[in-house]
Amino acid sequence: MNAKKIPDIIIGRLPVYLRALQHMADAGLKTTSSQELGEHVGISAAQIRKDISQFGEFGKQGTGYSIEFLINKLREILKVDQSWDVIVIGAGDLGHALAHYQGFKNRGFRVAGIFDNDKNKIGQTIGDFVIEDIATLNDRVKAQNIKIAIMTVPAAAAQEVADKLVQAGIKSILNYAPVNVNVPSNVKIQYSDPATNLQRMTYYL
Amino acid sequence: MNAKKIPDIIIGRLPVYLRALQHMADAGLKTTSSQELGEHVGISAAQIRKDISQFGEFGKQGTGYSIEFLINKLREILKVDQSWDVIVIGAGDLGHALAHYQGFKNRGFRVAGIFDNDKNKIGQTIGDFVIEDIATLNDRVKAQNIKIAIMTVPAAAAQEVADKLVQAGIKSILNYAPVNVNVPSNVKIQYSDPATNLQRMTYYL
Repeated sequence: MNAKKIPDIIIGRLPVYLRALQHMADAGLKTTSSQELGEHVGISAAQIRKDISQFGEFGKQGTGYSIEFLINKLREILKVDQSWDVIVIGAGDLGHALAHYQGFKNRGFRVAGIFDNDKNKIGQTIGDFVIEDIATLNDRVKAQNIKIAIMTVPAAAAQEVADKLVQAGIKSILNYAPVNVNVPSNVKIQYSDPATNLQRMTYYL
Repeated sequence: MNAKKIPDIIIGRLPVYLRALQHMADAGLKTTSSQELGEHVGISAAQIRKDISQFGEFGKQGTGYSIEFLINKLREILKVDQSWDVIVIGAGDLGHALAHYQGFKNRGFRVAGIFDNDKNKIGQTIGDFVIEDIATLNDRVKAQNIKIAIMTVPAAAAQEVADKLVQAGIKSILNYAPVNVNVPSNVKIQYSDPATNLQRMTYYL
């Protein structure tokens, strides 16, 4: 499937299609069209057909897409037809929110641990988690072969924490700190930052 | 500036360029190239030149872009050369995180209030904010002409809260609830959802 190099911009749209399709499936729908899916996600029907056709012929002219079939294909392509362990670094408000987050269920992820460097937080509990000492992070990531981390640390600590994660073997980082960090080219990083999300909409006000 | 219809996909990349440029400016840099900016944001130099040229000729062949000039232009284009009042709906963990968030500063936004419907939370404080009753939301949004809201409510409440926001006159919604909501076409909605962000990276694992 990865023999052909698919542009990252297309990969980035697949999770958005997947979320909308899962929403349709939850609502009891069985089939959809690129037109209908496009209205849900705000992307043109032509673009959706083009994106999906990169991976094979999943729709039928006239009858559209089977929602369940397309969900399964997208989960397979994105490798979320399995459950990935994810660690959270930073046990502040956002770390608490992630520990309680219900949106990971059935979407390919499981929070495996929450780490902090604050002696007052280490050993405290958040829901089912005991906050762990960041000093033990390296051993745990290696022992459990964890590949994915979420950073919810202050901006000033972000680069140092990212370096620790990379050294331990983490390959995918979701960074909530409002600052760019440098990672090697074999490590993927995504930024989630409310200001950037909001700036995308003010253009239209 | 808006006479020509600019594709939304381009508008969506501008805040990413802006964040990287502000990071460079903070580091004391004065000029940059599409090549260098591209390495920071993971987008090709050609794409960056094409995106920016939609709005005018901001760079010089050979000398590249003045960082300060480009920051000012992007802020103007995105209308974040002013400060927008933003309300937060939902005073849970994520609402707390947003109330304390330092990343809005100088980026065009100011949290103007936090609302909840839980009688045990209303009247409590989060930092400098007193949690307000969602029943008062409509009057406040209209009185202060607020256009932007962030939803951090449970999935089950998301559509009802979105409807209230739209009715009050909100035009931009950042939705953290892990569920799609329907809004009229004149209201912009952005989703921020850690599972979607993570799914974008698992493809590469």
